[in-house]
Amino acid sequence: ILVSILFYLALSPLTSLFFTKKKKRPHINTKVDKDKEKVATDFPIEDLGDKKVFCRCWKSNKFPLCDGSHNQHNKETGDNVGPLILKSS
Amino acid sequence: ILVSILFYLALSPLTSLFFTKKKKRPHINTKVDKDKEKVATDFPIEDLGDKKVFCRCWKSNKFPLCDGSHNQHNKETGDNVGPLILKSS
Ligand code: FES
Ligand code: FES
Repeated sequence: ILVSILFYLALSPLTSLFFTKKKKRPHINTKVDKDKEKVATDFPIEDLGDKKVFCRCWKSNKFPLCDGSHNQHNKETGDNVGPLILKSS
Repeated sequence: ILVSILFYLALSPLTSLFFTKKKKRPHINTKVDKDKEKVATDFPIEDLGDKKVFCRCWKSNKFPLCDGSHNQHNKETGDNVGPLILKSS
């Protein structure tokens, strides 16, 4: 059993490395139009009105607009993302 | 040695799980103003001119504007993010 434990300890970092390397690198966008090759959004300046808040966290249910979902993402992950706020001065 | 191998095979998924759980969840923003609690950007509608392209991938060296870095991110990770394009119609 001692040999077994030593064997295990020697190989476990390798296993971990193997599993990690195989993992795909994280996507920023996990939900919006994943069937599209690239999600670029055209928005006419004329439709902005006095103020529009645009999502940059890709979690909003009102995408391309921000619905506050960035706060939950920041809380869960320790990230610090926020929206783009376009306003008439 | 056979016992060792069996022992290893039984425990290696646990090891992997252990290492995975300990990993922090991915941040969307890995570089822009990481000292700030939240990166929200105010931009006056009057300064948009006829067209501005805003970054939503957080990789741009011209943040908050897009510099095309989303293409490299998409290529490297298989993601499909793109900018917000504000244009006069
Ligand atoms: S919901 Fe995405 S930035 Fe607010
Ligand atoms: S560089 Fe970030 S969206 Fe283009």
